[in-house]
Amino acid sequence: MSDGGFRFEVVARDGATAARRGILSTPHGAVETPVFMPVGTIGAVKALPHDWLEDLGTQIILANTYHLYLRPGHERIARLGGLHRFMAWPRPILTDSGGYQVFSHRDLRRLSEEGAEFRSHLDGSRHFLSPEKVIDIQQALGSDISMVLDECTSWPAGRADAESSMELSMRWARRARARWEASQSGTALFGIVQGGMYPDLRRRSVDALAGMDFPGLAIGGLSVGEPKGLMFEVLEATVGLLPADRPRYLMGVGTPADIARAVALGVDMFDCVLPTRNARNGCLFTSQGRLMIKNTRYSDDSGPPDPACECRVCLRYSRAYLRHLYQAGEHLSAVLNTLHNVSFYLDTMRKIREAVELGSYGKCLEAMEKWPD
Amino acid sequence: MSDGGFRFEVVARDGATAARRGILSTPHGAVETPVFMPVGTIGAVKALPHDWLEDLGTQIILANTYHLYLRPGHERIARLGGLHRFMAWPRPILTDSGGYQVFSHRDLRRLSEEGAEFRSHLDGSRHFLSPEKVIDIQQALGSDISMVLDECTSWPAGRADAESSMELSMRWARRARARWEASQSGTALFGIVQGGMYPDLRRRSVDALAGMDFPGLAIGGLSVGEPKGLMFEVLEATVGLLPADRPRYLMGVGTPADIARAVALGVDMFDCVLPTRNARNGCLFTSQGRLMIKNTRYSDDSGPPDPACECRVCLRYSRAYLRHLYQAGEHLSAVLNTLHNVSFYLDTMRKIREAVELGSYGKCLEAMEKWPD
Repeated sequence: MSDGGFRFEVVARDGATAARRGILSTPHGAVETPVFMPVGTIGAVKALPHDWLEDLGTQIILANTYHLYLRPGHERIARLGGLHRFMAWPRPILTDSGGYQVFSHRDLRRLSEEGAEFRSHLDGSRHFLSPEKVIDIQQALGSDISMVLDECTSWPAGRADAESSMELSMRWARRARARWEASQSGTALFGIVQGGMYPDLRRRSVDALAGMDFPGLAIGGLSVGEPKGLMFEVLEATVGLLPADRPRYLMGVGTPADIARAVALGVDMFDCVLPTRNARNGCLFTSQGRLMIKNTRYSDDSGPPDPACECRVCLRYSRAYLRHLYQAGEHLSAVLNTLHNVSFYLDTMRKIREAVELGSYGKCLEAMEKWPD
Repeated sequence: MSDGGFRFEVVARDGATAARRGILSTPHGAVETPVFMPVGTIGAVKALPHDWLEDLGTQIILANTYHLYLRPGHERIARLGGLHRFMAWPRPILTDSGGYQVFSHRDLRRLSEEGAEFRSHLDGSRHFLSPEKVIDIQQALGSDISMVLDECTSWPAGRADAESSMELSMRWARRARARWEASQSGTALFGIVQGGMYPDLRRRSVDALAGMDFPGLAIGGLSVGEPKGLMFEVLEATVGLLPADRPRYLMGVGTPADIARAVALGVDMFDCVLPTRNARNGCLFTSQGRLMIKNTRYSDDSGPPDPACECRVCLRYSRAYLRHLYQAGEHLSAVLNTLHNVSFYLDTMRKIREAVELGSYGKCLEAMEKWPD
């Protein structure tokens, strides 16, 4: 499907699973799917220099509208030529709507039909985000892909709450879509499916969004604390309802094994703070599972973090040295751990894409599903 | 002069000043002097990946014996193949003696003829460093250049205190030299001139060290709080006494302008935490002076940190973006600021070496002396 500078094409399908290989065209270049988007909260993937992000083959990053709106401000970014130019990142950028951050500061926000009033976590100042304003902000940032403002239904939620929350999100989606239409930007706006853990509400949400003809659809409100089995149940029920010709984005998920499973269900796009946040906490993702680098057993370990990995970190540094950096609270610890983890995620996605292209994704999935969560 | 794997050769002299171009050969490669050694306290130049240190043309780094002795421990580093291998840095390393750190924790240490007893700043554990032990530690680390244990005379100090302190340092230097002789390591040990701000004590210190025939000599106890004019007075009086065929190392100095002036007096080697520490505090060294990146005036400044600089940071990022990273407390801020500052220092040294080689250092110095301190 095509919408201005945005286009999505499925180029290959796996035989045994619902996995698919696609190409997402955006104003700042093409993105091969399934894709993982490293999270660049404030316009920087924490601790990771852009040069290295590029070297790793990062195709697209996610930036947070909430954070950039508060600091340095979307109007400033617009004056400075948009987010790509401001942060010196020439490749595609997806921005979230800011809703997730607003709603996660539960004591700081108040919801109404109109939108969300909240206080800044930085200085306590009052702000108001409406579906329309969130579009305006993302337009000012110049995102390649924007997201509608939605309410991320918390877990657990009773059926009535999940229903009214989903319905509010759908009304907001319609308002966002209208604002977007008027802007004629040539970039893309994605709708977000909500409905909590209730498959029939998910279906109603998908139906509502279908009428709005979004160029891409996200699945929100998963990985919010529910058991993993339930998440995959709801995911499977939902993905099957989505139009096959639009990209499908599972928000905020997950571990490498989670991603591998979701790809098998037909998901195309992912983002998650796990590789970056865990890196700063000394947790490395490896082909042998998670490695907690601060563990005493690595003090004298001259081996690489992951013998199967060929990233800069694994080729140069030992576990003993990385442990030392972590124990000393050295900035370089965050830099190197993040580099490795992002490399691990992007390598995983490359392997997934290759396997889907060859139509042999089942085997790849079998191996990856064994990775510890 | 030559001493095992260590050799120093003066290859050019400036016409109008005492500046000289030299080549220092070490077991891990040659170093062109005058040289600046970035400080890698715990076996890492804070926030700066090794790859980039190499790209910048870093020839030699300084590591801190005190920090490495306490954590992860020199015996562990020896077991892991020495400091070069442990930290994955194949180029030369100079280690200080640890004395400076021990003496700077005034309330944690007790001095005797034998050595210095102190408590760890990490866990309060008791330790004892003697001139001999400091040699053993540096041998375990495998440093290309080691330093003798000395007492860095504080400022201000009365004549009697400066004298007895200098004399203690000279007795320690003799003991260190003896331990070194016995080790037959093929690397180099430098003596350190002390004597406070008293030129005649400095002369006596130089004479004492001359008898011990060190392959290189350092000038310690400067830049410890004294006025800059006094520092250069004492420096000038001291450098003139040092043997012309040995490398001369001015410890812990200084700003780019300080270094340029000291080179003109005949100094060959420098180290200082300024470029790295200031970077983490948002202070950038530029051809136009110091730039405090957190200043509000840079919020909307799309220009590079230093228009005359061609480092990765100046070629890619704006002042506005670097300010944003600093304000957000982002790790990447420390990384990028450090890269720029170290680049600025190393570029300055390259310019200095070129000018000395051409015999036109006077003009270069004139420009650099104008740089704000």
